[in-house]
Parts: sequence; structure tokens; C-alpha cells
Amino acid sequence: MPEKRYLLTPGPTPVPPEVLAAVGAPVIHHRSPDFRRIYGDCLERLGTVCRTDSDVLLFTASGTGAVESAVANLCSPGDRLLVVSAGYFGERWIELGRAYGCDVAELRYEWGASPSPDDLAERLDELGGAPVVLLTHSETSTGVVADVQSLAAVAKEAGSLVIVDAVSSLGAVPLQTDAWGIDVVVSGSQKALMTPPGLGFASVSSAAWERQGTATMPRFYFDWARTRDAQAKLDSAFTLAVSLVAGLNVALELLLEEGLEAAFERHVALGRACREGVKAMGLELFSPDEDRSAVVTAVHSPEGVDAAEVILALRDRFGIQIIGGQGALKGKIFRIGHIGWFNIFDITTALAGLELVLAEAGAEIERGFAVTRALETYEGARV
Amino acid sequence: MPEKRYLLTPGPTPVPPEVLAAVGAPVIHHRSPDFRRIYGDCLERLGTVCRTDSDVLLFTASGTGAVESAVANLCSPGDRLLVVSAGYFGERWIELGRAYGCDVAELRYEWGASPSPDDLAERLDELGGAPVVLLTHSETSTGVVADVQSLAAVAKEAGSLVIVDAVSSLGAVPLQTDAWGIDVVVSGSQKALMTPPGLGFASVSSAAWERQGTATMPRFYFDWARTRDAQAKLDSAFTLAVSLVAGLNVALELLLEEGLEAAFERHVALGRACREGVKAMGLELFSPDEDRSAVVTAVHSPEGVDAAEVILALRDRFGIQIIGGQGALKGKIFRIGHIGWFNIFDITTALAGLELVLAEAGAEIERGFAVTRALETYEGARV
Repeated sequence: MPEKRYLLTPGPTPVPPEVLAAVGAPVIHHRSPDFRRIYGDCLERLGTVCRTDSDVLLFTASGTGAVESAVANLCSPGDRLLVVSAGYFGERWIELGRAYGCDVAELRYEWGASPSPDDLAERLDELGGAPVVLLTHSETSTGVVADVQSLAAVAKEAGSLVIVDAVSSLGAVPLQTDAWGIDVVVSGSQKALMTPPGLGFASVSSAAWERQGTATMPRFYFDWARTRDAQAKLDSAFTLAVSLVAGLNVALELLLEEGLEAAFERHVALGRACREGVKAMGLELFSPDEDRSAVVTAVHSPEGVDAAEVILALRDRFGIQIIGGQGALKGKIFRIGHIGWFNIFDITTALAGLELVLAEAGAEIERGFAVTRALETYEGARV
Repeated sequence: MPEKRYLLTPGPTPVPPEVLAAVGAPVIHHRSPDFRRIYGDCLERLGTVCRTDSDVLLFTASGTGAVESAVANLCSPGDRLLVVSAGYFGERWIELGRAYGCDVAELRYEWGASPSPDDLAERLDELGGAPVVLLTHSETSTGVVADVQSLAAVAKEAGSLVIVDAVSSLGAVPLQTDAWGIDVVVSGSQKALMTPPGLGFASVSSAAWERQGTATMPRFYFDWARTRDAQAKLDSAFTLAVSLVAGLNVALELLLEEGLEAAFERHVALGRACREGVKAMGLELFSPDEDRSAVVTAVHSPEGVDAAEVILALRDRFGIQIIGGQGALKGKIFRIGHIGWFNIFDITTALAGLELVLAEAGAEIERGFAVTRALETYEGARV
């Protein structure tokens, strides 16, 4: 019998069959009327999901490419860029800013911390302001979802433009681009948007467009103006990954049919269920035990058990793919993703498999409670 | 009955069902052992198709992104970059070099000309050399396939590093990266490689790596060293478009099963058949009537007939998608692509539809000869 596979990582995430069918459909030309219809719908739906009236620019690239577009379009060499970092992706944005020759200032936390608006205000004050601030909404490496509404408010107050990396949060947890005054929201196709990886996008406010006009970093493929001008004619500056756009369009339709609020509630319930199940096993959470952090549940590997071996055993025995820690957390934590096309039985499958594998690895855990606790928590949260 | 569609453009091109099945298969994690196997095979096959022992670096991007990677990794601001241009894509590379702040020198031809090695030698002499020369192998806008072997030899003789844009040529017409001393061959997934758009790649010689180490253009997403280091561990610097990589791997397997030489011969025969069919209708070729130019057949629209209307009619009446001219050639020519998964009946379908549509538009053409002539030419060429 073919093995059943369970993709339970925080990206790429499982893709619904309707989306896979669109992705695997015969290719159509990127400048044909058929494609323009799909493309127009997709761009409009992206705006709805981002809760913005601004242009959302679409790139064939990973989320990192789209973040790079923000730095390349908003900064000139030597410009100060303040990056708030509390994990692997925050560190990546610091590195990216440096690679571009920005004067990168940091507000750096231990991995797993939740950035504080007061600290940001203080840091901006200390620096005498920063033209651009880069925030990470969901720090996928730790499971922390930051309070970007408050953080963005502080940065706007200090006169900064705000870029938010919403790669693993968009569509899973609330994010209101326009209402919260966020200038640039960057995301990707392969997380809560239930599409294979390969598309990144960036919403751009009018203030960001103003700065773009004078920013002198070299850029061509990721040049916003080139992309905006093409999109205005439902054209693309460069050949788009049409198959992925067709898939994304279907996925966005599915998401909007469920409704954004309903999707956010589902993610909260899934996150709560996963954390309660993990705790019922007697394991210690690395993720914050709070409803906002509904993207990924990070768990300390029990004493004497290497997280990498747990992950390997889950995959080899049961076809269950979860993922380990990044950087300094390698081997120390494992992470269960639950963004996008997930229901409670994905969580109970992960917990059931995990329980068995940990027991066999000799971990001292409570057995027989996790699945029931998760299911009850989920049902309770959904009432 | 669902309409049958015929994608007869020089990219994106038709994708075989085996490849579509891989593209539309459930997503697997980009750091899982399952994906690493696919990824390793794919990278190795790319090297075989490029005929190089050097690293071939894979990016989630269009071909333009991969060309940009070459400029960003080989140049520092103010470096001289000599671009040989005889069409739309040559012009794009001039613009790209300027966007990056290179000191762009040009060897510019009328669109449709075939660049001459003697001119290149003279231009390099005039300039006192150029550290980097950028050539276009197949100028998709005009149908000309340049003699890059001779052009590259001249540039190497003058001490330049040579980048070749082989986006629409790789896998369709002969290209020997190592034997011809080409430092960087850039291509994409959506042409002769029979895969949907979204993947670009670049092969990098040891001389190019040497220059890369000192080139100071800002780069992160397209940084070659970052990608090479990840690929060495069958990892990727950023989340790859795993679905497209899975498809490309199948497509490369199909191409290598046919054999590169057999594929080149098939393309020569298809190109010859298409040109003979077009001429049998009494139309005038814009493409060169030579076997090397086997990627796309460009045709002057007959007196008084707007190419755009011909293209629209073919699509609306018959589901046949061909494409018009770019830039100054808009409305004046139409182009029939025949790279990748094409056989003679794709050509005869295009010719049959075209004949009818042109006759209805009032063009004075010969009717009843094109299909037979094309088929006979193809069979003759294949004996």
C-alpha cells in the first residue's frame, strides 16, 4: 500500500487537492487572456487577505526574495535599517540588510522572546530614529507571534516606515495592513496560503512608494516600479510561475470562502489543542502558551532525547514530517506546524505518533492523555 | 466538449503529463530525505544538459532572475560589462546592467541580425577589453540563434569572462558549456526543459567563482556562494519551489532518455518544417532560414494584416496560442514556438489554423500547401 504522508511543518504546508489540481493543470501563457483573468483575481484576493487597498506586488521567489525586494526598494547604501530580531528569521534580516550595505541597527532578543513595544520605542529614541524598521510577525523558528500592531504603532510614531515579515502569519493570525499603518507586508505562498512554495509578495503603501522613488539600491528583478507598472496592465515584468499563481488563486478563494475571521479562530483552536496535548504528555513548551502564537508549536525535547532522532523516527515509521530547531536550537526542540490546511486530526496524528516515538526513545512521558486532551480542547474552543 | 488548447509559444511551452503529475503531487518538505533525492538527481541532470562539470546553481526565479544573479555576482559598481544585443532580450540585459550601476558597453545590432565574432573582436579591441561579456544564445524575440561558440572564443581570447543567456536554447540547440569555455550559462525551466516557469539556474566556472569572491554588488537571494554552500549539502539557502523542482527532475529525465543529440535533431527538423510550411503559404520569414535557429519561427504579418488580430483569432476560434512581436516588432510579426515537447503535428496544427485565419483576414496567401510541405520536410529531415 502506498505510504500515507503527513506534512506537519510550518512551511511548506499541506496543499488541498483543488489547489494541486490547478498547479498541475496544463500551462497557459502568462500574457494570454485566460491567465490575465486568474492573475487579476489572485491580485485582488491578495489585497483582501492583506487587508489593504494598496498594490500587492507578486514575485516568483521565496518569501526571502520578497523581503529583499523591500530592502532594495526602500534603502540606499548606508541608510539605517532597524531590525527587531528574536529568532532565526530576525537574524536573517540583519544579514540581508548588511549584505545590502545598510547601516543595520538591531533590537535583539534571546530566541523565543516576544519583542516589546517599549523596548522598540527606547531603541528608536536612542538611535534618534530610523527611516525603516523591519519586524517579524511570526518568528517561525520559535513559535512566537509578535504584537506587530503595537510595535508598528511605536515605529510609526517615531516616523519610521514599517516592513513586516508576515511569511508564516498571513492568513493564520490577524494582520491588518492598512488599519495598523503597516507600509510593507511581505509574505509567501507556502504557509497559511496553502500553495506550494515559489511565490512571494509585498504590499506597498503610498509612503513606501514615495521613498522607493529616491532609494538607490541596485534592483531589477525585484524592482517594485517595474512590477507595479506591469501589474497595472495585468502583465508581469518577467515570466511568472503561472502554475503556482493558478494554485494560489484557488487557495485564496478557499480561504476567503471559509472567511478570514473563521480561519483565525480555527488556527487559535488548533494551536491551543496542540499545546494542551503536548503538556498532557508532560512535555515542556518552547512556544509561548498564548493564543496569538497559533502558527507553530515548539517543544523542548525531553532530557536525554535528541530531537533529530524523534523527527527521523516519526518520518521513517509513520510518514509524519515535523521539523527540528534552527541555528542554536538544533537538536534541542522540535516544531509541529499547524498553519493553512489543517484540522484537529492532523494535530492528534502528530501527538499520537510523537507519544509512541518518545516512549520508545525512553523519554519519561505521560501516555494516553494527549490525543483526548487535544480533541476536547479543540471542541471547547470551537463552541 | 472542453476546448483543446495548443500552447505554441516560445515559453512557457507545453508540459508533458508525467511532468505535470510531478508538479501537482502533494508537497514534500524541502529538507526531507525524499526531496533531497529528487534535488540531487535534478542538479546532476542539469549539469549533464549544460555539458559542464561545474556547479549548476538553482534559484526559484524566472530566467531574468538567474541572469541578474550573474551580473550581481561577477560585477562591482562601475565595472565594464559588454552586452551583445540584437533584440528584446539583449536590450533587457543592457537595462539590467545599467540598473546595477555597471559601465555598460554595447555591441548593438538591428533586431534580427546575427552577431558576428569579428565585430565582437573589434569592439573588445576598441574598448581595451571588458572583464565580463554577456551574450544571448537564442534571441527569442527574433528567432536568431547566435553562434555563441565563436563569439565566446573571441571574448575568451580577449580575456573576458563570458555569460551566456541560454534561456530559450538549452536543451533545444547544441551548447557545450565546458568545451566552449563558457563561464556562466543561464537558463530557465519553461522552455526546452518542458517544465512550468519558476526556476532559473546558472552554471559557474572556476574562473567565475574567482571573480565572484571579489565582486561587491549587493546580493542575498541571488548570492551564488550562499546557494553553492547549501547545495553542497543538498540543502537550499531559501525554500525552493519544490513542486517545480520535482517536475523539472522528471522533465530532465525524459530529455536525457531521448538523448540530447536526438533532441537537437528533432528541433532542427521541426524548425525546418515550420519555415518550409510558412514559405509554402507565400509568407515572408523574419527568422533566419537556417538550421541553427530552431527555437522559434518569426514571420512577417502579410501586407495589411495586423499580427495581433491573427493571434487573437487563432486563440479564440481554435484555442491555438502563438505570440506576437516584442517592442518595435509588435503588430508586425508573429512567432510560432517549437521548443521542448513538440512534434510535427504541433507544427501542422499551427500552420493549418494560421492559413485559415489569414485567408479570412483577406491576406493573399497560397492555400493547401503548407501542411503537406511541413510534414514532408520533417520526414525528409528525420531520415
